[in-house]
Amino acid sequence: MSAFSRFTPLASALPSTVPFVGPEAIERQRGLQVKARIGANENGFGPAPSVLAAMREQAGEIWKYNDPENYVLREALANHLGVAIGSVAIGGGIDELLGQIVRLVIEPGAPVVTSLGGYPTFNFHVTGFGGRLVTVPYASDREDLDGLLEAVKRENAPLVYFANPDNPMGSWWDGESIVAFARALPETTMLILDEAYSETGPAGSLPSIDALIELPNIVRTRTFSKAYGLAGARVGYVISTPGTARAFDKIRNHFGMNRLATVAALAALKDQAYLAEVVANIHGARDRIAGIAKANDLLPLASATNFVAIDSGRDGTYARAIVDGLMQYGVFIRMPGVAPLNRCIRVSVGPEADMALFEEALPQVLKALG
Amino acid sequence: MSAFSRFTPLASALPSTVPFVGPEAIERQRGLQVKARIGANENGFGPAPSVLAAMREQAGEIWKYNDPENYVLREALANHLGVAIGSVAIGGGIDELLGQIVRLVIEPGAPVVTSLGGYPTFNFHVTGFGGRLVTVPYASDREDLDGLLEAVKRENAPLVYFANPDNPMGSWWDGESIVAFARALPETTMLILDEAYSETGPAGSLPSIDALIELPNIVRTRTFSKAYGLAGARVGYVISTPGTARAFDKIRNHFGMNRLATVAALAALKDQAYLAEVVANIHGARDRIAGIAKANDLLPLASATNFVAIDSGRDGTYARAIVDGLMQYGVFIRMPGVAPLNRCIRVSVGPEADMALFEEALPQVLKALG
Repeated sequence: MSAFSRFTPLASALPSTVPFVGPEAIERQRGLQVKARIGANENGFGPAPSVLAAMREQAGEIWKYNDPENYVLREALANHLGVAIGSVAIGGGIDELLGQIVRLVIEPGAPVVTSLGGYPTFNFHVTGFGGRLVTVPYASDREDLDGLLEAVKRENAPLVYFANPDNPMGSWWDGESIVAFARALPETTMLILDEAYSETGPAGSLPSIDALIELPNIVRTRTFSKAYGLAGARVGYVISTPGTARAFDKIRNHFGMNRLATVAALAALKDQAYLAEVVANIHGARDRIAGIAKANDLLPLASATNFVAIDSGRDGTYARAIVDGLMQYGVFIRMPGVAPLNRCIRVSVGPEADMALFEEALPQVLKALG
Repeated sequence: MSAFSRFTPLASALPSTVPFVGPEAIERQRGLQVKARIGANENGFGPAPSVLAAMREQAGEIWKYNDPENYVLREALANHLGVAIGSVAIGGGIDELLGQIVRLVIEPGAPVVTSLGGYPTFNFHVTGFGGRLVTVPYASDREDLDGLLEAVKRENAPLVYFANPDNPMGSWWDGESIVAFARALPETTMLILDEAYSETGPAGSLPSIDALIELPNIVRTRTFSKAYGLAGARVGYVISTPGTARAFDKIRNHFGMNRLATVAALAALKDQAYLAEVVANIHGARDRIAGIAKANDLLPLASATNFVAIDSGRDGTYARAIVDGLMQYGVFIRMPGVAPLNRCIRVSVGPEADMALFEEALPQVLKALG
């Protein structure tokens, strides 16, 4: 296959990795149809009716580029969070923002600290900019704050990634521990505090905005993809000091946001009543997933997210066989990629029809596996 | 303003430039309202009714991430163009693809050849990755193919940018000259042949797909933002050899596409009858703009795009005064940024109501300027 001969040495050395295989690709490759889409930590309860109404109403404006300053959405988020508008930067989901942060902070060879088995897309970006991943094992299925701090100091790392609540395990820390961790970091280490699942955790699991807003080395990332049910829209945001947030303007794709996506995000933010309703549905579905696991003698882990990690009681090969077996029934789920986390399967929340399909398929899969 | 202290040297040195100020920002800064939005080379005729219907119908699917392989859209484009599916890569508009290309090809300090006054967003990306811009002046308001080739050879440049039809001048070359230029380039120089305005040029102004598809150093970029009327959706694509197209998989944001944007693009591609209708409308609006210019003793340049550059007959200061003056009447237009191109103003097509506002405001502005 004939390719251009003069890509950069870094680009030439990169693998053509995909962080995740999508359900559509699985359908094409295996000739199967997804009936319960509960694998990608999407939110099958969907966005608010008010959000869909706003998108449909504004669809005719799609011929216009979006405001490159994302002013109205940033202003609404700033008011919602109680921060200055300059403290908010917008991107095409947290994934895009992670890539921008890595680009701003990491030169080839620089160490980047994260958890062994943490978010693969972050690792993809680190590798893509030539960074060197330094991984710290989970401790009791939580990211290890002490271990991460120790690795940062040992490596003099410019960047550390920490997700709270955590993906893929669903676990969490209390806000006070996170604030202590953030304050203990060297000022020359940027912390990405990924709070994609911030809306679904228990009380006390999130540091207050005020607790960290004055630290220029802390960047909190949040999204409309999870609780707000807008994964396909691609709207994420950063909360940091204005000085740090401004750095995104140096490199971001200023006209990169989809106009209807920002319409949707704005409408979603306004409809906090619907959010509360969906969060209750997510809690309910988490309990439902846990109940199905227990009924099959599997151990559900406590979750602060929109998914539940379920300990299969055996190893990664067995968990993989469950994932593949469920897909035969049209039930799409995923699993952590690295031992010992990969003893688990990971099931995202969804409406009752999805839960029922999972409930029906799981015992048959387990029985066939023996 | 307190900012993180350890951004990369490259990031620290970058200015917080914005390639373009958006009309919304102008409204906020100047306390004015845009009544005729004919400055950003958008397409005020909008997308097909069939496209809006598809978006509204599929809006409820927005809770799902888009297929990271963009398979269905790539397949449709490949069929439309008569190329292998592997020859098509998708991105969030040409802007995002340009950034990816620069990242794949340019190391800090590497020379990048483009035209003096060419597309600013490309320059933004080159600067953002530390590339060194080598500019070639326009010749008779066209990009200078001989000059670009000479600069590439002199500098041993890994990358050259050429837009056909051209933005901001609206000028074009015939397909044969472009093929000759492409074939004369060293194999170690990648050509970005930006064909954002490919649908609106005269017969013979586009190289056939076959003429360049086997050259691994040629990357053609196209978009749904212009003739298809979907600027706010952010869908662009690359046509190249499969080997070169695969390189995007190494670094792109795999889950970066908005799900409804790909729905819209797919529907737009299917509705070629509407496209033909809009292209006719664009031709009509170009003539209308040219007529207004002439009625005011200004010289419209011939255009192959969805806008018309109009020679003010004087310098950049005068042209800037026209642009600013029109905005007082709610008529948003733009102008080239660099001499001698900046003697012109640049007016995008739009429906008759927009044309009428322009027609009404222009003589008043010119009269006030004297």
